[in-house]
Amino acid sequence: MPEIERPPPSRSSPGVRALSWVEGSLVVLDQRQLPGAIVRRTLGHLAEVAEAIRTLTVRGAPTLGVAAAYGMVLGQRADGLGVDEAAGILRGTRPTAHDLFVGIAEVERVWRAGQDTLSAAAAYERRVVEECHAIGEVGAPLVGPGARVLTHCNAGALATVAWGTALAPIRVAFLSGRDPFVWVDETRPLLQGSRLTAWELQQEGIRHAVIADNAAGYFLGRGEVDLVIVGADRITRSGDFANKVGTYEKAVLARENGVPFYVAAPWSTFDETLRRGDEIPVEERSGEEVRNFAGIATAPEGSPVRNPAFDLTPHRFVRGFITPDGVLAPEELEGHLRARTRPLL
Amino acid sequence: MPEIERPPPSRSSPGVRALSWVEGSLVVLDQRQLPGAIVRRTLGHLAEVAEAIRTLTVRGAPTLGVAAAYGMVLGQRADGLGVDEAAGILRGTRPTAHDLFVGIAEVERVWRAGQDTLSAAAAYERRVVEECHAIGEVGAPLVGPGARVLTHCNAGALATVAWGTALAPIRVAFLSGRDPFVWVDETRPLLQGSRLTAWELQQEGIRHAVIADNAAGYFLGRGEVDLVIVGADRITRSGDFANKVGTYEKAVLARENGVPFYVAAPWSTFDETLRRGDEIPVEERSGEEVRNFAGIATAPEGSPVRNPAFDLTPHRFVRGFITPDGVLAPEELEGHLRARTRPLL
Repeated sequence: MPEIERPPPSRSSPGVRALSWVEGSLVVLDQRQLPGAIVRRTLGHLAEVAEAIRTLTVRGAPTLGVAAAYGMVLGQRADGLGVDEAAGILRGTRPTAHDLFVGIAEVERVWRAGQDTLSAAAAYERRVVEECHAIGEVGAPLVGPGARVLTHCNAGALATVAWGTALAPIRVAFLSGRDPFVWVDETRPLLQGSRLTAWELQQEGIRHAVIADNAAGYFLGRGEVDLVIVGADRITRSGDFANKVGTYEKAVLARENGVPFYVAAPWSTFDETLRRGDEIPVEERSGEEVRNFAGIATAPEGSPVRNPAFDLTPHRFVRGFITPDGVLAPEELEGHLRARTRPLL
Repeated sequence: MPEIERPPPSRSSPGVRALSWVEGSLVVLDQRQLPGAIVRRTLGHLAEVAEAIRTLTVRGAPTLGVAAAYGMVLGQRADGLGVDEAAGILRGTRPTAHDLFVGIAEVERVWRAGQDTLSAAAAYERRVVEECHAIGEVGAPLVGPGARVLTHCNAGALATVAWGTALAPIRVAFLSGRDPFVWVDETRPLLQGSRLTAWELQQEGIRHAVIADNAAGYFLGRGEVDLVIVGADRITRSGDFANKVGTYEKAVLARENGVPFYVAAPWSTFDETLRRGDEIPVEERSGEEVRNFAGIATAPEGSPVRNPAFDLTPHRFVRGFITPDGVLAPEELEGHLRARTRPLL
């Protein structure tokens, strides 16, 4: 592997930040409006945070965990809720991302102990950002000079507060003077690839091309993809994982074409209580997300739609997990998780 | 295989018809406007036919062949063009579908021989429709009672004048009283699945669900797809073929999950002059098809886009070709084509 320089000493992301705690409220970048408009929303109550999570105003597993952590703070301080009620509402928003439950649990523990919930949420946010930066450092050597990386959905700063998971190694490689190129799956139905990932890359001048999800196989088949890096919403201890629907398709196609496939995630995404991927609950969202785009029909009125938001990829398709501690093969995962369980949760 | 009844004796399609020759003009259903509006356009000149082909007003390999055949007639009768010029303009419209070139060649031959071009175009249209009906008869036994069939793009009546290729076996199974179910890939970027295939199926009351292309792998992985049937734009003598981008992804995923994958096509789609798939020219269309939907940006302005309209699937992924003569394995194809070459072209 070529030697890489460290990125600038600042621990803040080079660009985008998905949310911030400002004077007693959670300020989030409205991800539904990108790239057309940069709109920030100020959320002063737990119910507003829950609604922002449900509507994908904030999204991305690590960002969801941080948003939910601050949602707990608002539930306590602004709404006077009990800890069970606050945690219950936030846990009911979306089922798949493990980070959401970790972020809630971190603040819940402190709340029950009578300690400062805001400090706990802020510490959780810092840890997520630091872990994503570490993922960038760990994964950057995989992104060789001029490497062509395929990614799916948005696993960038928007999804993780800052840096990203899948995008972090690309960012660090870019900042250290290499010139990576990113194939951006547009990621139907909600286009988190073309709307969010392309926007993040454009902000920072990283070379990329948006493609229909359907075209990834074409470019993989022509040898125009050197590696695939995706994020995850939940990873079991075997390495089976859930991520945005379509991820499984790319994993199968990568293996078919001999292209290494990596999953980048902070520790909050790993769910040690589950072994097999099919134990992960998969959210199925409204058919309207497929049937309409910006109010214009994309299918006949009344045509039935099925809209799973995630899919499940077996660990045998994964070359490695890019974690804050290093790149781990699927078979190394369970032992590593066991060794580091206690300090984590 | 369960016994199936023959469909009604009428050789016309049960529903939709993509085009008709009416009083000296070609009347086409504008496929860009579906499913929102049923708009028919009357094309009285070759240049209008060429433009309708380029803009996907008419589309689908077998329909393109018929449209081009009538375009030749208009070039001769309405425009007073020479045969070389007429054929040259139409050949320059789109590069991938083989049927386009067959339709042109059929009329060109008759034109050069001083015979009636309109009769030749009409005979070509009848043959395409008859072959598609035969494909339905041949393929219907593959569609068992309640079978769940995945298809990609639109290989229905709109793509083939009537009956369809991939949809023909489903139609015949439906008409004979079985109750097939169709998973409809929406087929980005131009949504020929959700806009056209779902509309055709809805017209006839055939059960279906529209899915994002990304979700096909999820349902294949869960065992909810019994077989895949797609159409083709060009099939080489080895069985490698080009079809709408994303087809290769489904073929790889079908094999990974042990689900049989079939390609349905009339003889005009087979190109005996080519052996390998990578000899087929693949059209790359404007990035605007990906970057905008109905005038609304789906990616940041200025983000580069790559937009191949087709991809190439190697024959090893194909269980069988559903042809008017029967279901042929890839290894049977070349011999069968050689035996029937002369009467065809």
